[in-house]
Amino acid sequence: MESSRGVDCKNIAAGECVTLGRDDPLRLDCGVEFSDFNVAYQTYGELNNDRSNAVLLCHALTGDQFVADNHPVTGKPGWWETVIGPGKLLDTKRFFVICSNILGGCMGTIGPKEINPETGKTWGLDFPVITISDMVRAQAMLLDHLEIDRLFCVIGGSMGGMQVLEWASAYPERVFAAVPIATAAHHSAQNIAFNEVGRQAIMADPEWQGGEYLNSDGSPHRGLAIARMVAHITYLSEPSLHRKFGRKLQDREAITFGFDADFQVESYLRHQGSTFVDRFDANSYLYITRAMDYFDLAERHGGGKLAEAFRGTDTRFCVISFTSDWLYPTSENRRIVHALNAVAANVSFAEIESDNGHDSFLLDEPEFWNVLFGFIEGAADRYGLKR
Amino acid sequence: MESSRGVDCKNIAAGECVTLGRDDPLRLDCGVEFSDFNVAYQTYGELNNDRSNAVLLCHALTGDQFVADNHPVTGKPGWWETVIGPGKLLDTKRFFVICSNILGGCMGTIGPKEINPETGKTWGLDFPVITISDMVRAQAMLLDHLEIDRLFCVIGGSMGGMQVLEWASAYPERVFAAVPIATAAHHSAQNIAFNEVGRQAIMADPEWQGGEYLNSDGSPHRGLAIARMVAHITYLSEPSLHRKFGRKLQDREAITFGFDADFQVESYLRHQGSTFVDRFDANSYLYITRAMDYFDLAERHGGGKLAEAFRGTDTRFCVISFTSDWLYPTSENRRIVHALNAVAANVSFAEIESDNGHDSFLLDEPEFWNVLFGFIEGAADRYGLKR
Repeated sequence: MESSRGVDCKNIAAGECVTLGRDDPLRLDCGVEFSDFNVAYQTYGELNNDRSNAVLLCHALTGDQFVADNHPVTGKPGWWETVIGPGKLLDTKRFFVICSNILGGCMGTIGPKEINPETGKTWGLDFPVITISDMVRAQAMLLDHLEIDRLFCVIGGSMGGMQVLEWASAYPERVFAAVPIATAAHHSAQNIAFNEVGRQAIMADPEWQGGEYLNSDGSPHRGLAIARMVAHITYLSEPSLHRKFGRKLQDREAITFGFDADFQVESYLRHQGSTFVDRFDANSYLYITRAMDYFDLAERHGGGKLAEAFRGTDTRFCVISFTSDWLYPTSENRRIVHALNAVAANVSFAEIESDNGHDSFLLDEPEFWNVLFGFIEGAADRYGLKR
Repeated sequence: MESSRGVDCKNIAAGECVTLGRDDPLRLDCGVEFSDFNVAYQTYGELNNDRSNAVLLCHALTGDQFVADNHPVTGKPGWWETVIGPGKLLDTKRFFVICSNILGGCMGTIGPKEINPETGKTWGLDFPVITISDMVRAQAMLLDHLEIDRLFCVIGGSMGGMQVLEWASAYPERVFAAVPIATAAHHSAQNIAFNEVGRQAIMADPEWQGGEYLNSDGSPHRGLAIARMVAHITYLSEPSLHRKFGRKLQDREAITFGFDADFQVESYLRHQGSTFVDRFDANSYLYITRAMDYFDLAERHGGGKLAEAFRGTDTRFCVISFTSDWLYPTSENRRIVHALNAVAANVSFAEIESDNGHDSFLLDEPEFWNVLFGFIEGAADRYGLKR
């Protein structure tokens, strides 16, 4: 049994950080134990006296804990900044909002770019392969540290939604309400295929150096940018690409008969790739996509039957999908709803009309916000949280 | 004005080859002229005395002229071998079938891997950027050489279908019947985006060496394999990936907590990538995908209006799409049909029910074959070709 001890929270660019696992280590699904590891997180609002108003946000593959702050690396607004704050849709005068960087991430929580205390070098590929369940257990340890027994609500889109489902199945007694958005209870073959292309692009880059690039001058920027580009296509719908770009040319009157970015969509994709590499770690990308591929809620908690993963749950669910999301389409979200219905769970389901594809949950989608925060307000009233 | 002279047809692994353009050069859309260039092709059956029974097949991005022979590099059967031959659906006792390697290809026709006679080295990125129209003009020159004034029929799927459309618009008097299959009259933003990822993957591979790899020991195998992998996902439908692979593991009982190909779909994709690089040239991949992205039939032949590209045509069309094709979906094929209807052209349209995605046109799809060869037989009867 391997184990590891973390380093101090000193390298965190901004925000909160805590070292966990000293008394009771995190035992990963692969068997490795972390007995001393950092979790970086952000909070918004204040925990009430009952410690009952906590909302856990679970971020997606390339997201992080900076939900409603300017990002310390990019300086850009947080990914849900428009809706979180005092008087905003997710009102921080009512709720205490927590978001932690996931296990395996690259914004302060233990991950492949952090120092392995056993070797004094960055973990690289020595970092153990983690799962969505591991991520959620680390979050549960953070809640223990914050002395929060029960979440009012856990919310997340995409891979964040997988964490929501895992929370509801692994810790039903700790979750009053759960909102999985634009997600799936397992990765389809096509989901795995796209992730595999991204991983292969990173590992094909000689600068990846078997994952050891942080101990050298190089960096697999080109491979990571390719991975981001292909993933980014899956985040957008064909109609939104058509609306935004169509066949419009980039700052030119005619095609150039060359391999420059003649088309706006090419220029946009290149930009997505090149900006991503400044803020994300290539090995983290490998580990997190692997965790997504491994995710299979029915196998883990239901003996192969999805409904069994939810049997007996008292959690109130609101499942939300988007019509033009082809990465985690409505059909995958509906599978979750059907499974919940099969065990007579309390579930509402909304398919939001939008042509913005999978990324809709990050965009200004009024109908989505209405459904989401209508559910949250109503559930909070029932839970007895004062307005 | 640049011009070039080709080399002898001596390097062709198998099949026919002809040097064209000596008297009347091929003037490319970019302005370059080829005054002496090779076109490699295969024929099946015999040209009748009237020279009226010629069927031109146009191959797709990664196809070639070996339609109904074993491939000289891979040894595998040709891409339509099951349907072409004496007594088969496309009966070579009735028809004279021609397929030429496209301009820019890598199976004997002039392309970036051939020798540039001006420099004595491979063309590499000095090869001019070509278009679908250029490919079709080279085919027309091949037909002139074969003394075939008019095609009974021109048929092609995917990029082959783009060539069919270009044939029908550029040379309506030379085409009695046209069958564009699983194609589009222009590339959408999403189509361009996927191609751009493939090109960036190739160009990100240091072994690509600015396109000069054929003059060295290296080869951008890794980048080309990534390009193939991402493209291959777009050739298959989500349901067919689910049916074939689902979440099945590859020769193992449980996940390995690593980055090997745990899932069958990963193993399959890696295999698709690694076998492709043995038979395809990375620079050809760049040039051909660029030609596809540039393709816009309405712009070229209709002043921006697709219907105008077909005005006055006497060609009989049969447009075929597949329900699960999301690369060139039915909607794109229907646009072609609507444009043909708008100028009162003779067109039939069939959307074939299949879950095999874009690749359906290469697979055993009985309904597809029935529609395709029913149309061809009927058109041949009308054209007066004896059975």
